[in-house]
Amino acid sequence: MRDVAVIGVGMNKWGEIWKAAIRDLLAESVLLALDDAGIDSVEAMYIGCMSSGLFAGQEHLGSMGPDYSGMCPVPGIRVESACASGGAAFRSAYMHVASGMADIVMAAGVEKMTDVDGGGATFALATAADQEYEVYNGVTFPGLYALMANHHMNKYGTTRDQLAQVAVKNHINGSKNPLAQFRMKVSLDQVKNSVMVSDPLTLLDCSPITDGSAAVILCSMEKAKEITKKRMVKIIGSGHASDTIQLAQRDDLSSLKSTAIAAKQALDMAGKKITDIDFAEVHDCFTIAEIMVIEALGIAEKGKGGKVTVDGVTAFDGKFPVNASGGLKSKGHPVGATGVAQIVELTKQIRGEADDGRQLKKADIGLAQNMGGSGASSVVHILEGM
Amino acid sequence: MRDVAVIGVGMNKWGEIWKAAIRDLLAESVLLALDDAGIDSVEAMYIGCMSSGLFAGQEHLGSMGPDYSGMCPVPGIRVESACASGGAAFRSAYMHVASGMADIVMAAGVEKMTDVDGGGATFALATAADQEYEVYNGVTFPGLYALMANHHMNKYGTTRDQLAQVAVKNHINGSKNPLAQFRMKVSLDQVKNSVMVSDPLTLLDCSPITDGSAAVILCSMEKAKEITKKRMVKIIGSGHASDTIQLAQRDDLSSLKSTAIAAKQALDMAGKKITDIDFAEVHDCFTIAEIMVIEALGIAEKGKGGKVTVDGVTAFDGKFPVNASGGLKSKGHPVGATGVAQIVELTKQIRGEADDGRQLKKADIGLAQNMGGSGASSVVHILEGM
Repeated sequence: MRDVAVIGVGMNKWGEIWKAAIRDLLAESVLLALDDAGIDSVEAMYIGCMSSGLFAGQEHLGSMGPDYSGMCPVPGIRVESACASGGAAFRSAYMHVASGMADIVMAAGVEKMTDVDGGGATFALATAADQEYEVYNGVTFPGLYALMANHHMNKYGTTRDQLAQVAVKNHINGSKNPLAQFRMKVSLDQVKNSVMVSDPLTLLDCSPITDGSAAVILCSMEKAKEITKKRMVKIIGSGHASDTIQLAQRDDLSSLKSTAIAAKQALDMAGKKITDIDFAEVHDCFTIAEIMVIEALGIAEKGKGGKVTVDGVTAFDGKFPVNASGGLKSKGHPVGATGVAQIVELTKQIRGEADDGRQLKKADIGLAQNMGGSGASSVVHILEGM
Repeated sequence: MRDVAVIGVGMNKWGEIWKAAIRDLLAESVLLALDDAGIDSVEAMYIGCMSSGLFAGQEHLGSMGPDYSGMCPVPGIRVESACASGGAAFRSAYMHVASGMADIVMAAGVEKMTDVDGGGATFALATAADQEYEVYNGVTFPGLYALMANHHMNKYGTTRDQLAQVAVKNHINGSKNPLAQFRMKVSLDQVKNSVMVSDPLTLLDCSPITDGSAAVILCSMEKAKEITKKRMVKIIGSGHASDTIQLAQRDDLSSLKSTAIAAKQALDMAGKKITDIDFAEVHDCFTIAEIMVIEALGIAEKGKGGKVTVDGVTAFDGKFPVNASGGLKSKGHPVGATGVAQIVELTKQIRGEADDGRQLKKADIGLAQNMGGSGASSVVHILEGM
């Protein structure tokens, strides 16, 4: 496989964006990434998006993307793996360049989630779970993750305060991120006393509904050396694995097998151990998710994810900073954009460009973990500064 | 790029399938393809599907696919480019193998279109067009292709009989295909006198609403030589291009620029001219589409697609057989499966396995053209028997 680098990144300000349609959101990050790379087109586009059909009545973003960023006849493909759509788009773009089919390929991600009324967003998100065996019986995503949380609490003694600490930490980080949706800090008590969604998860244990996009440009290393004057950010590991779509069919409700397998693939490919990694962006769609993910990645021992969080290991100034961007929790979670935004953050940190006092001291090797459904899909990438 | 071959193909019987959910349809073709290849798993899956969200309330087929065919933790990605989703899935799988990331990768495609009521299918299909500038103003796909047909008729003198002849030809071919949805032959008068959908297109000018799936297995040439005992079918060309999603923004309503560009890419990559190709499967979603596609591919001169069809050039025993399978028109058009089914047909013809008197005399090099929207995406592949 050819060596591939990330040479441009872009992300708009996330939130409830009433003045922009999905096409505008997408084009905004695409143009920011082109600008960052100092180029005006790419050879192909991958667009991560979970459900533009249900959220915006618009499929065929593979055509919309190149069209609305002025790049026709550049080919576009929309990629979907539920909440891991962005990571999957990045991986597809990576293989496109690695194969030699093209030198410069974009991976973008977008979701416009606030244009549906009533339970529309909850229904659309629930299509990432098993429609016939889970959703039909009334469970939605907070319910699925609450099942996992309860199992984790019963099995390992994980506490309510440990869950809440994930939110506290990620809101501290997000408060420094100018592009984050929710920049307020939250206290342990605020998290625990916010509206109950699905016991034990309250509103502030859940990532929000967000409009937003992100885009990154991948380039063969050879070509990248001609184009970029910034620090070279190389993709050194990529992994992707699936698990049963139904939570009920797993061996263990409180572990994320797909994340563990994808991480092993990516680490093996990079020739690294998890202790070689400086920082990570992970899929904290709910507070319990971050705890389970850091265990699956090996940042914490099995059952110790909560303790490690309270001990500050994953804090901004901790031994292994996790979600310095604010994570899905504070930065927002426009589903298809999330995995791409993780790569944006990794690249900015590795380049030393994280703004507003958010730059990590040591950020040479970063890991991104993006997850779909209740862990039925996981994508892991490792990037290293050269 | 590494050489890649197709080593297994599978397709279920298409039609209105009330007894199977989307997961069952998908698994059926996946298992048929594994059986055909003589293997029991793959390293990754791509699943072409246009809108399982709107048609079946189920996204995340990238997890559902491996799960319901017993292949977890094999990673899966769903790929969408409207009606070109299947072709895009095949191209993604091709690059996955060509990159060296894996040796054996599946491209499947599926759509379950009959589980929506009322105008649900028409609405879902319309999301392949521009939602804000086309669909909002009331146009659906028969309307868009009727605009193209009228323009073609006015500009080039294409006749109603020439349009209808596409349907007559493809139903003759499809009548011999045991997996086709509509196996009846139709006469010119039947086509012209069937219910008007959007002038000049009648019901029998339109491809149907279909439940169905298809799957193919791609393999590095090196590994394929160890696995397969059948005739080796090599992918020698791949192309993909976009055009404006809105018909109104094109220079010319009656030509398919994205198809012409994608075909040139594929032919250049293969080192072939269109006259070197023995047969083709093309995207005849409406009769006018096949006429415009054969012009864009260079099988007919610009404006002569209708005449060439009436002259029998594209007939089963003609100089350049097009849609020997029956095409979308007779075989059916389960949107995401269509592009993959074209590869199934190419492979069967090249191997000499087309059943029931449907085997072409000369079928060493075949071309597949799959299209999304009103031509906003086109994917072209060329396969050659070794």
